[in-house]
Amino acid sequence: MVGKSDPYGLIADAAVVLDQGRIVWVGPRADLPSHHAAHPQHDMGGRLITPGLIDCHTHVVHGGNRATEFEMRLQGASYEEVARAGGGIISTVKATRTASQADLVAAALPFVDAMIAEGVAVIEIKSGYGLDAETELRMLRAARDIATLRRITVKTSYLAAHAIPPEYKDRADAYIDEVAIPTLHKAHAEGLVDAVDGFCEGIAFSPAQIERLFIVAQGLGLPVKLHAEQLSNLGGAALAARFNALSADHLEYLDEAGVIAMAKAGTVAVILPGAFYTLRETQAPPIALLRQHNVPMAVATDMNPGSSPMSSILLAMNMACTLFRMTPAEALAGATIHAARALGLTSHGTIATGQTADLAIWNAQHPAELAYRIGFNPLHTRIIGGAL
Amino acid sequence: MVGKSDPYGLIADAAVVLDQGRIVWVGPRADLPSHHAAHPQHDMGGRLITPGLIDCHTHVVHGGNRATEFEMRLQGASYEEVARAGGGIISTVKATRTASQADLVAAALPFVDAMIAEGVAVIEIKSGYGLDAETELRMLRAARDIATLRRITVKTSYLAAHAIPPEYKDRADAYIDEVAIPTLHKAHAEGLVDAVDGFCEGIAFSPAQIERLFIVAQGLGLPVKLHAEQLSNLGGAALAARFNALSADHLEYLDEAGVIAMAKAGTVAVILPGAFYTLRETQAPPIALLRQHNVPMAVATDMNPGSSPMSSILLAMNMACTLFRMTPAEALAGATIHAARALGLTSHGTIATGQTADLAIWNAQHPAELAYRIGFNPLHTRIIGGAL
Ligand SMILES: [Zn+2]
Ligand SMILES: [Zn+2]
Repeated sequence: MVGKSDPYGLIADAAVVLDQGRIVWVGPRADLPSHHAAHPQHDMGGRLITPGLIDCHTHVVHGGNRATEFEMRLQGASYEEVARAGGGIISTVKATRTASQADLVAAALPFVDAMIAEGVAVIEIKSGYGLDAETELRMLRAARDIATLRRITVKTSYLAAHAIPPEYKDRADAYIDEVAIPTLHKAHAEGLVDAVDGFCEGIAFSPAQIERLFIVAQGLGLPVKLHAEQLSNLGGAALAARFNALSADHLEYLDEAGVIAMAKAGTVAVILPGAFYTLRETQAPPIALLRQHNVPMAVATDMNPGSSPMSSILLAMNMACTLFRMTPAEALAGATIHAARALGLTSHGTIATGQTADLAIWNAQHPAELAYRIGFNPLHTRIIGGAL
Repeated sequence: MVGKSDPYGLIADAAVVLDQGRIVWVGPRADLPSHHAAHPQHDMGGRLITPGLIDCHTHVVHGGNRATEFEMRLQGASYEEVARAGGGIISTVKATRTASQADLVAAALPFVDAMIAEGVAVIEIKSGYGLDAETELRMLRAARDIATLRRITVKTSYLAAHAIPPEYKDRADAYIDEVAIPTLHKAHAEGLVDAVDGFCEGIAFSPAQIERLFIVAQGLGLPVKLHAEQLSNLGGAALAARFNALSADHLEYLDEAGVIAMAKAGTVAVILPGAFYTLRETQAPPIALLRQHNVPMAVATDMNPGSSPMSSILLAMNMACTLFRMTPAEALAGATIHAARALGLTSHGTIATGQTADLAIWNAQHPAELAYRIGFNPLHTRIIGGAL
């Protein structure tokens, strides 16, 4: 992923040397230094090797599912009828609040396992369906549990400002003061927060409210990221960039000023085609502008029960190409090197000396095949921490 | 799938009795006749049971893949540049012509296995990438081989009029006379043809050419089906209906006269959202009209290396809902009872006395979950011919 000659940096007939869970050498097999040649060797049969994939934006920890709501909508029910029947994000909040930590882990594992089966080595998991201190903390603890139960690296985001719960209706500022900020302090004290996240949108929180949250995160030395410009342009990406955000995510309505702000700050654009597809949006994120200004683009599933019940990073890569005209190389960089950067991870996302030995081995000849296929998983196996 | 009370005919706490590869009883477990109660029982743990799924339109047997072409297009290459680089359907024809029967089988099996892993019990496989007698026959033999190598029922379609090979450029009528019809006789004599198929479109064959083919098929007592109204309205569906076609497939440009003709003939509308998605079409098939005239709608992958490199029937079901606003119940009927009808199969597609005991057992509570998820496979296991 760091080559100059082609966008993939593909090496034909390569060797990768792994030691103590790290990559210690990579290059053409003919150049393998003799002191490495004595190590035990595994022949991958001419298969494609990529970095282990990284899904840098998921809400995989949550209670319940929204299949009934999906069905009601397709039977012609209005949003109001769905809401009256208990649908919408609040139904997920209810199901999450009544779920135990063990319930949340058990519900997430089938999707985490599906991600692992697709060569994923690192996932981000957000809270944000509790909307009260206790449930938000429980979600983050469940996310940490997953890292102990599966061979996968988990980075947590405390999604402090996701939605306004019924008990704070029309009192978003009070929610920030009384729930979001106090819970951030508690979660950070417990070591549960790798980044702080919010949703900046007319139906969620204003830039001013997000800013108050980010100032607290900054004071704690925590990186921030933001759901921004998904449904309208409130300048969320530029706000995030002012706080040197790791990423701004969604970005369908991002304008050039926002792109430039992100480029200056080194903020990654996380592209989430699953939500665009599910919500039948028509305005695509400004891929050409992001490309032109060299903003690194990540691609993720946004796995969540409402707007993107999709757990396949390979499908997200295909959708990024098909729906947004990203190239297969951009899609793969988006699920490796740029996804790592969106999580502040310097140890993952490339096959380079010193990196963690997390690799994906594919029944494929060329990396373009990964984004080309739709709903097919060509994984042969994963290598995680140097172990097959 | 045949209930009256709800679109699924869902039975809570059901029992299904299987004997000699057939379903011999189905109903509420409380009503299980005592003479069946003595049989060995398998507790499915409260899981959802559906008929084994049916993918009634695939081109899964073919040579090569078109990942390079996919990548070139996304890098901005024009159709002409892609064609000059050897892309397009002709590249698949070349790769298929040079592949042995064993090569074709080996290339198809990973996708067939992916289908099996999603609970598929029956697939249709078309020829149509040979465009010469020898290769068309080899494709059909490869399709038959698959049924012997995997626990899956295969129905073959000789896709006699798919595209015009370079050697017949501007001589489509001669192709019909010299290749399509003679090969149909040979393939039928060898028992390789369960149905005869064509592609009626400006870029392929005219209604008059398709009709000449269908007359021969009719004379041989073979059912027909047709790729119709995908890119324009040539009246292909009505033509197919005049021959009592099993199905007309794609149908984005179908008009009400075509819908009425299909309704009268009992021709199934096979909906193929994967091609619509990949080609970024904007005109959806007339689902509301098909529904209004009670035309049975099937849903299939159209698995092929160019316009739909998608092997997931569950994803096709989700796309049918998300892109075409079919209901989850219609999508499931489309991959079971109506898909069976599109193949002329009366033995599959429902859980009813006398049917083949092909079932899919799901880690799901409600059938709407099958179409709701995107790129996730909740299959627990298949039962095929009564065997777990
Ligand atoms: Zn999100
Ligand atoms: Zn087709």
